[in-house]
Amino acid sequence: MTYCVGMVLDRGLVLMSDTRTNSGVDNISVFRKMFRWGGGDRTIALMTAGNLATTQAVVSRLEERTKAPADRQNSLLELPTMFQVAAEMGRLLRETVKETQTENGADGKGRFTASLILAGQIKGMEPRLFLIYPEGNFIEASFDTPFFQIGETKYGRPILIRGYDRTMSFEDAVKLLMVSFDSTLKANLSVGMPLDLLVLERDTFEPLHDRRIESTNPYFEQISNSWGAALRNAFHSLPDYSFYQKQDG
Amino acid sequence: MTYCVGMVLDRGLVLMSDTRTNSGVDNISVFRKMFRWGGGDRTIALMTAGNLATTQAVVSRLEERTKAPADRQNSLLELPTMFQVAAEMGRLLRETVKETQTENGADGKGRFTASLILAGQIKGMEPRLFLIYPEGNFIEASFDTPFFQIGETKYGRPILIRGYDRTMSFEDAVKLLMVSFDSTLKANLSVGMPLDLLVLERDTFEPLHDRRIESTNPYFEQISNSWGAALRNAFHSLPDYSFYQKQDG
Repeated sequence: MTYCVGMVLDRGLVLMSDTRTNSGVDNISVFRKMFRWGGGDRTIALMTAGNLATTQAVVSRLEERTKAPADRQNSLLELPTMFQVAAEMGRLLRETVKETQTENGADGKGRFTASLILAGQIKGMEPRLFLIYPEGNFIEASFDTPFFQIGETKYGRPILIRGYDRTMSFEDAVKLLMVSFDSTLKANLSVGMPLDLLVLERDTFEPLHDRRIESTNPYFEQISNSWGAALRNAFHSLPDYSFYQKQDG
Repeated sequence: MTYCVGMVLDRGLVLMSDTRTNSGVDNISVFRKMFRWGGGDRTIALMTAGNLATTQAVVSRLEERTKAPADRQNSLLELPTMFQVAAEMGRLLRETVKETQTENGADGKGRFTASLILAGQIKGMEPRLFLIYPEGNFIEASFDTPFFQIGETKYGRPILIRGYDRTMSFEDAVKLLMVSFDSTLKANLSVGMPLDLLVLERDTFEPLHDRRIESTNPYFEQISNSWGAALRNAFHSLPDYSFYQKQDG
């Protein structure tokens, strides 16, 4: 499995991904699921969930790795809008999934799929966040739904829904993501440390922060340890139930 | 979908279930998923998740509804131990699932399944809690895993893991269950109000509480409204992240 979250804030974009891939519980590895391209007028970031061979193939095709290094041309750096970048990624994803499925006959149907979160900004336009489906189509984050999750989305979702605020600082957004990842890591063995973190400030075309958070990171340890106590305090701050007063309205 | 939780406390057993069943999002109904039998030396409670025709058939067979009312004999009231009750329920569940699957040919494989949570106590023995699988086998709750969930288990699990304490009062257990159900109700449309609540005190063979919690229940509304604020307070009580101090240990 995987867990990746991308969110849009007034200040820009914040992305976090785990790094565990598994084929059964007895075959786990660390692979990067967050990718970034840019320079000059744009920053483009991608997070991947699903079949690892598929997502690695998509990234390799984006970077034209079938060609000699000197001949490669990354179209992401030339497309005029983020919408076109999303359409190009969707096309590559759909083709890669379809090829592998076709090569494997009807049995392959529904397998080899993957989903992508695409985030970025091109100069003169707004920061944008997309969720790309294995079929190649995609949706964009909006005021109503300002973040996307892929992979194991359920355990970490309630705190995102309650804690997200589009005016929040980048620091608070990272704290929120760490709480959401901590709940997920504790519940699903196929989501694992280290985590990758990327912060893209609006109208700034170099990442503000791009770092790996190891399991020994003292801040993450502190969040993980103190969130249990904070949750219990929150729980005890709620009004007490009584069996003996009228409860039904 | 469904959401049901059963937990063992030092004081006894607490069960909560939702009542929504659905066949597609455009066909939803309210059905009771919590059942109780007892009298004299025992209380036995059952919660069901999965195919509604299957779970209703299991309950009807337990109550021998194929016979005239006067000839019916509920074996649950006669079996000497909770282990035997679990085995009998498992047998009825496995047979019901298998029959429907067989009648529907190979296509039926994997469909028509259901899971059960069984809770209860027979005089002279401990309160016990079981999770029964569609295959008819079952596991029992232990000190290490003192509660079982069936149905949509993920959204409501983190707070159960952090909030559960076997010495907690029944009131705190109900509060904890309401928070867990609130998170699940907010995230999955196929889990719905009203909720059924059953509290079985140790060595007492009449339920301490057996009530339905409607969506207008003022306590539930209060929990639902204040949990968001309590979570945000918990979040803000955590230490702040800083991009500019050494984070990696």
